[in-house]
Amino acid sequence: MTTKTRLEHDFLGERELPDDRYYGVQTLRALENFPITGVAISSVPELVRALAQVKKAAALANGELGVIPADVSRAICAACDEIVAGALHDQFPVDVIQGGAGTSTNMNANEVIANRALEILGKRKGEYQFVHPNNHVNCSQSTNDAYPTAFRIALHAKLGQLIAELRRLQQAFAAKGREFADVLKMGRTQLQDAVPMSLGQEFDAYATTLGEDVQRLEEARALVLEVNMGATAIGTGINAPPRYTELVTRRLREIVGTPLVSSENLIEATWDTGAYVQIAGVLKRVAVKTSKICSDLRLLSSGPRTGLGEINLPPLQPGSSIMPGKVNPVMPEVVNQICYYAIGADLTVTLAAENGQLELNVMEPVIGYGLFTSISFMVNGFRVLREKCVDGITANRERCRELVVNSIGIVTALNPIIGYEASAAVAREALVTGRSVAELVLEKQLVSKELLDEVLSTENLLRPRYINPRLQKVA
Amino acid sequence: MTTKTRLEHDFLGERELPDDRYYGVQTLRALENFPITGVAISSVPELVRALAQVKKAAALANGELGVIPADVSRAICAACDEIVAGALHDQFPVDVIQGGAGTSTNMNANEVIANRALEILGKRKGEYQFVHPNNHVNCSQSTNDAYPTAFRIALHAKLGQLIAELRRLQQAFAAKGREFADVLKMGRTQLQDAVPMSLGQEFDAYATTLGEDVQRLEEARALVLEVNMGATAIGTGINAPPRYTELVTRRLREIVGTPLVSSENLIEATWDTGAYVQIAGVLKRVAVKTSKICSDLRLLSSGPRTGLGEINLPPLQPGSSIMPGKVNPVMPEVVNQICYYAIGADLTVTLAAENGQLELNVMEPVIGYGLFTSISFMVNGFRVLREKCVDGITANRERCRELVVNSIGIVTALNPIIGYEASAAVAREALVTGRSVAELVLEKQLVSKELLDEVLSTENLLRPRYINPRLQKVA
Amino acid sequence: MTTKTRLEHDFLGERELPDDRYYGVQTLRALENFPITGVAISSVPELVRALAQVKKAAALANGELGVIPADVSRAICAACDEIVAGALHDQFPVDVIQGGAGTSTNMNANEVIANRALEILGKRKGEYQFVHPNNHVNCSQSTNDAYPTAFRIALHAKLGQLIAELRRLQQAFAAKGREFADVLKMGRTQLQDAVPMSLGQEFDAYATTLGEDVQRLEEARALVLEVNMGATAIGTGINAPPRYTELVTRRLREIVGTPLVSSENLIEATWDTGAYVQIAGVLKRVAVKTSKICSDLRLLSSGPRTGLGEINLPPLQPGSSIMPGKVNPVMPEVVNQICYYAIGADLTVTLAAENGQLELNVMEPVIGYGLFTSISFMVNGFRVLREKCVDGITANRERCRELVVNSIGIVTALNPIIGYEASAAVAREALVTGRSVAELVLEKQLVSKELLDEVLSTENLLRPRYINPRLQKVA
Amino acid sequence: MTTKTRLEHDFLGERELPDDRYYGVQTLRALENFPITGVAISSVPELVRALAQVKKAAALANGELGVIPADVSRAICAACDEIVAGALHDQFPVDVIQGGAGTSTNMNANEVIANRALEILGKRKGEYQFVHPNNHVNCSQSTNDAYPTAFRIALHAKLGQLIAELRRLQQAFAAKGREFADVLKMGRTQLQDAVPMSLGQEFDAYATTLGEDVQRLEEARALVLEVNMGATAIGTGINAPPRYTELVTRRLREIVGTPLVSSENLIEATWDTGAYVQIAGVLKRVAVKTSKICSDLRLLSSGPRTGLGEINLPPLQPGSSIMPGKVNPVMPEVVNQICYYAIGADLTVTLAAENGQLELNVMEPVIGYGLFTSISFMVNGFRVLREKCVDGITANRERCRELVVNSIGIVTALNPIIGYEASAAVAREALVTGRSVAELVLEKQLVSKELLDEVLSTENLLRPRYINPRLQKVA
Repeated sequence: MTTKTRLEHDFLGERELPDDRYYGVQTLRALENFPITGVAISSVPELVRALAQVKKAAALANGELGVIPADVSRAICAACDEIVAGALHDQFPVDVIQGGAGTSTNMNANEVIANRALEILGKRKGEYQFVHPNNHVNCSQSTNDAYPTAFRIALHAKLGQLIAELRRLQQAFAAKGREFADVLKMGRTQLQDAVPMSLGQEFDAYATTLGEDVQRLEEARALVLEVNMGATAIGTGINAPPRYTELVTRRLREIVGTPLVSSENLIEATWDTGAYVQIAGVLKRVAVKTSKICSDLRLLSSGPRTGLGEINLPPLQPGSSIMPGKVNPVMPEVVNQICYYAIGADLTVTLAAENGQLELNVMEPVIGYGLFTSISFMVNGFRVLREKCVDGITANRERCRELVVNSIGIVTALNPIIGYEASAAVAREALVTGRSVAELVLEKQLVSKELLDEVLSTENLLRPRYINPRLQKVA
Repeated sequence: MTTKTRLEHDFLGERELPDDRYYGVQTLRALENFPITGVAISSVPELVRALAQVKKAAALANGELGVIPADVSRAICAACDEIVAGALHDQFPVDVIQGGAGTSTNMNANEVIANRALEILGKRKGEYQFVHPNNHVNCSQSTNDAYPTAFRIALHAKLGQLIAELRRLQQAFAAKGREFADVLKMGRTQLQDAVPMSLGQEFDAYATTLGEDVQRLEEARALVLEVNMGATAIGTGINAPPRYTELVTRRLREIVGTPLVSSENLIEATWDTGAYVQIAGVLKRVAVKTSKICSDLRLLSSGPRTGLGEINLPPLQPGSSIMPGKVNPVMPEVVNQICYYAIGADLTVTLAAENGQLELNVMEPVIGYGLFTSISFMVNGFRVLREKCVDGITANRERCRELVVNSIGIVTALNPIIGYEASAAVAREALVTGRSVAELVLEKQLVSKELLDEVLSTENLLRPRYINPRLQKVA
Repeated sequence: MTTKTRLEHDFLGERELPDDRYYGVQTLRALENFPITGVAISSVPELVRALAQVKKAAALANGELGVIPADVSRAICAACDEIVAGALHDQFPVDVIQGGAGTSTNMNANEVIANRALEILGKRKGEYQFVHPNNHVNCSQSTNDAYPTAFRIALHAKLGQLIAELRRLQQAFAAKGREFADVLKMGRTQLQDAVPMSLGQEFDAYATTLGEDVQRLEEARALVLEVNMGATAIGTGINAPPRYTELVTRRLREIVGTPLVSSENLIEATWDTGAYVQIAGVLKRVAVKTSKICSDLRLLSSGPRTGLGEINLPPLQPGSSIMPGKVNPVMPEVVNQICYYAIGADLTVTLAAENGQLELNVMEPVIGYGLFTSISFMVNGFRVLREKCVDGITANRERCRELVVNSIGIVTALNPIIGYEASAAVAREALVTGRSVAELVLEKQLVSKELLDEVLSTENLLRPRYINPRLQKVA
Repeated sequence: MTTKTRLEHDFLGERELPDDRYYGVQTLRALENFPITGVAISSVPELVRALAQVKKAAALANGELGVIPADVSRAICAACDEIVAGALHDQFPVDVIQGGAGTSTNMNANEVIANRALEILGKRKGEYQFVHPNNHVNCSQSTNDAYPTAFRIALHAKLGQLIAELRRLQQAFAAKGREFADVLKMGRTQLQDAVPMSLGQEFDAYATTLGEDVQRLEEARALVLEVNMGATAIGTGINAPPRYTELVTRRLREIVGTPLVSSENLIEATWDTGAYVQIAGVLKRVAVKTSKICSDLRLLSSGPRTGLGEINLPPLQPGSSIMPGKVNPVMPEVVNQICYYAIGADLTVTLAAENGQLELNVMEPVIGYGLFTSISFMVNGFRVLREKCVDGITANRERCRELVVNSIGIVTALNPIIGYEASAAVAREALVTGRSVAELVLEKQLVSKELLDEVLSTENLLRPRYINPRLQKVA
């Protein structure tokens, strides 16, 4: 069986391609030049769709402005629609990490769209005199505006998924906050016994903190609504027709359905990676928060017999190949690791951003790799954390209560009544002798039995009623 | 000469102090325990002032609520006013990096204020039965609310300085943008000749990007207006009187003069370091941007004879101990280094934040160290960068223009007229033969002399008039 | 068509599996629990092979010590041999990032090997009473020794690939060093003209620095020759028979063919991740060096007309979708990005290592992900950098020479003769007037024409003959 | 009172200096140009001493080779000896973070030494015609060889301090390892109960791991024994007399007393920062290990009543301003923070190293700042950690033992006897019912009372005797 081939050329020469490929000679060169990660840009379908949306918007604007023929514009739009609908994604094989600042990705899109448009027009692939990857599909564009614009549209979509997933996780913690509202437990600062609280308060705080992260993500996400179509090579708009910037941005806004706007300074917008650094930084923040929560879950569920043992995580898999019955907190553990990945990826983005030079930052592909993998891993990890772990957490109520009653930390509640120094003396004595705080303060007649009972009641420990020390002393 | 001493004790025992010290036994222990950096908390005067403001607000609220005697409240307030005015800062010698989550810093403040208040009341230092560091100065507080609140107030002030300095730097670049508006030069992408632009556009883009950073800083700075006074130990408000949280926050707002608000969830607020991570992340972003600009300035001023040589930085010092006449871009170089410090400090903050556990993040001191040093270095560095470098930059107009005229990149301007493929062929021939683009296109009769002159005029290269290729081809 | 299934159970219950799967119930749970990256452990064939080698060594030792039956031992060994030879890798589908400290990876191996061994013994998959994943394949082992041992063997192999590739890159630079040995060019410090050198010296320095990196890699690689077989759960060797540690390590050494040794302290070895941190740190160092070299290549090849233009990189693909004839330094660019990835991955490894707790570091899977991806990307990137870029670099000899002759920096060569201050004066005058250094020193009679010619000869600039200033001054 | 002044000039003009200053005009400019950190290079006395050692070695070599007059050489040596002995350090006020790649630091040294040498020769400060900072003190040198050489000598000395301190810490842990050798406790993996061990083994592992870090530090430290004296500006040795490199290196080796060697490739050595990256990476490794140990100490001492409570750290200071009797693990906490600082500093060093360009890395000052602060903080922190914490740790023997006896994890010891699946069933039942493992296995007649007692004896749990499952089953 012989595969049909076609010849294509660029200014470096002529190359043969299997004729079933929609991509052309420049994509072929990119495949040879960048065998780096083995991960194709098609692994981010949001990016492939966004490229098609950008090309469609440009074709519409170019058609309306009379810069390309109407039938060519229509054919390009039809090809783009197919890609947005999910077709031809396997024709985007270029490696996600590539040199050339995304030129290969942009040309991959230009070539696939040109060849599909040619077919739509009844022509054969490669007959670029009718629909040309550069002259028509890329008309009034440069890699330096088309590629980052598509990147931003894809990033906006991916961040939307993350925000939705984070909201669901927030709600899961909030539900546990309500469920555990009356579970009295000991609060700990610096891993040392502090003062009582409820387990519900602890979980509710996780919900609160994730809610704040959602806000920060929303703010950062808004930054990528600013796009630089019309900038062409370096922001001066060379080769773009008058009114093009405004028109293509409007068409793109309609196609994507998000409130995209044009950058006020297209020169700056062409090299600026500030939005990516901001987003990576906020992802790092989300990672820091989520990792802290997961570490807490592992601490609180430590045991079953020699740890804190305040909560139980749902058992998901045998935890050891040698220790029978061992169950591990595998969900928090995997999310911790995802968070460490995301913090590392933030550094990659930072380095890539810092090394931009003059009119363009050439490192955008690795920025994209860092951001897209981080977001994907987080979306996946947060989902299983919620479904397989948080939703099923149960409290060891008795254990929690016992720890409070036997603690020394409850002496703090007596502080306003008997003073810091007397309290400190009781605390030291309790520690040394192993006796309980209640026993000692009664023995020393520092407080009446009635007041003590009131102060140490669950009700009062969960929602402390203030006891005025000065009035008390008088009494 | 014998120094008078006094005895103080805490629950670990009794210690002797020189009686001229306003700080007490707990500060003494901290000095012995933390000989780490040699940098005292007094090196951040904004923090010392903020501690006094917090203690004053608490004394006012405690006095109004009848929790401490009126005269004690007044004396504490008077002592705090002195510290805010600049007195006694040398009495805050505790090391900036310390264990104990800031307890030593908080107790340092409590002790100094108690002893000064005692003097104001006509008592002697150490007579804590009248004004007690814990029972009175720290009344209704814990380190875990007083310390982060003071930290946030100080951080807000320091960020204000940075924003002001960054605005001035932005204006300096904008002024150069106007000054160089008509200096035609070659834009470069990937360090390769791209298309023409003006030097003014390049500098104006720097101003634009710094303006965006100012916005991001303002947003992040707003996060530390949220404080957790009233949380006490872990956010449950144990030992704080009713209405205290609202009242102390109001008083603090009045004293500091910024729109401080109380956190909605005091449990979360007590352990949450999200605001610091966000701020560190935005400082990192500022560092990335500023570092990129400084690297550009070094590239553009490279030479004097074997580099790009488009601009001149003011000479500030002989640049070599061996190479006569050498002058180096020392200001951008020092700012690059400050930026690398700030990016490293962001990582320190990240690590410290990620390692918080349960109801408190004990790593706040090193977070403070990272943030305060980064901000200070940036404020200092950005000021000298502006005063000693940016303000005095001059353009090598002739050099800039020559590079454009001799470039191959101007062929892009002919792209819409003669098409991408013909342009590419001209470009390759120019490269190989060393001939000029203009010469070649005329020789090949690809374009008329009139049109060529128009296209390659400075006016057109700076503000390209669009030439419709389709109309052109017809013509 | 109905797929045949079999039932398996663990202590969490019973599950159905398609009977063509060699993996069992625990792998199935892992697939459900960890849908994180979409990358299976089979993506690192070195790891799959190493797991089989570990299991074979254990089976041999267990057989020799009489802990498992001889026929079971033989069947396990046969199954392992098949996997080492490349079979069944598709039966290792567990995600590379997983909770449980590698238990899922270890159990995946135990299950696949048990089932294949069962077939070899003429039994059916799942008949674990004959060959049991835990009792036989995992006999005398725990995840906590078997998994890190396999990880280390795989890491050693991958690092061997990197070292080989780095050596080839070093040789490519050394070859260019020889080729360009007599190309006189201007050296630059701080991007400012410094003193002359040869282009060959510049490239030879790259070779030297990579040679040093090879040494550092070799040293770091030696650390993973230390393995902890026999440690079992936490290093106490619980459930391992006497003499097992020594024997299994010997068998493993024979099977793998590398000089593996047993850790002296198995408790420490079970939680210690120091070797990974060291390796990640050295990979970071390699990244820093290689990235610096790639940045240099981009600087030196900047142009073609408005940059330094001292060297030419081979053109690999059209560099722009809009700028005809533009060719970009895509190979150095892609390697820069790989380096930023590797530096980010080092941070991920650092975070994971720092968060180990007590007797085990549970974060090893993400450490593996970071290390294996970094190494793979580097191996791939360094290869194409060499083949498609370095090998084909050419020098612009005339351009290089002209820049030297017209430079001011050559005045340094006159420093010993006319003194630093006179040289500085000449340098300043040359800069201001645009005149040449040679012209000025002759005009001022600071040096004779003969001496000047000698000093500024190519021969002398490349290999400076020392001129004694004191003798000179006398003369 | 009028201060006497003197005039000095460089090629940028003339400036007035107070005549009591030993530094001159270039130092003055540096003070004005770099008001960044407020930290002077004199804060690293090792660096000031090393600068004097380098200048002395150069003066000796220059004298011997007849390049400078003998009396000038002697006077320079005498001035250097004074500085090495501790004099004039206050005359090194230049900021540690500076532009110019260390030129200001080098000129600061040249100026101070020249002026002191002038005094020694009976001349007045500023009479540079007799002893000139550049022509004599800096003779045959450049900043680019003298500064990094001094930096390396200082770094070698500082690392020596760290290694000594780390060794002492290692010994402290080893001593505790011996002290706690027979304290039976539960080992934990993934914070879940694993199998028994001794507390001594846990502490001994800390000693082992620190011992490995000492080895890595020694290896990395050896890298800075390689110096580049004789390289002058860019490594070509321009302006250095024949035989100078060999001679100055020999003299320097004698003066410093360490086995310094000359770099084989002086071009590479002039820009290479690989040794700093390696050292920063190993410091990061030390930080990772030490931080892990400190986190463990905090976990093991958590309590006193609601945590693990296996060990007690010596109480050092009251742990709370509100919670009486609370004592915190302040030493591990402060060391954790130092470690986060050091990891951040490693990133700063990495960034600075990666951004070197062509023949020099201009970012060396911030590399020095990062390394010197990290090492100092670690030396200080490790000392107090040892003296105030590790040395005084005590074990809660009874608590440790009880946790083992009541654990489920001891079932692993029965694994070889009753099989993994039966053990798992017992474990699950124990967990659900709250009953003990011993009780259940006896009730189910899975093992005889005698064998059980033997298996669960302290002796056997600490040093497990292997019980052959196959023999057992037969029996």
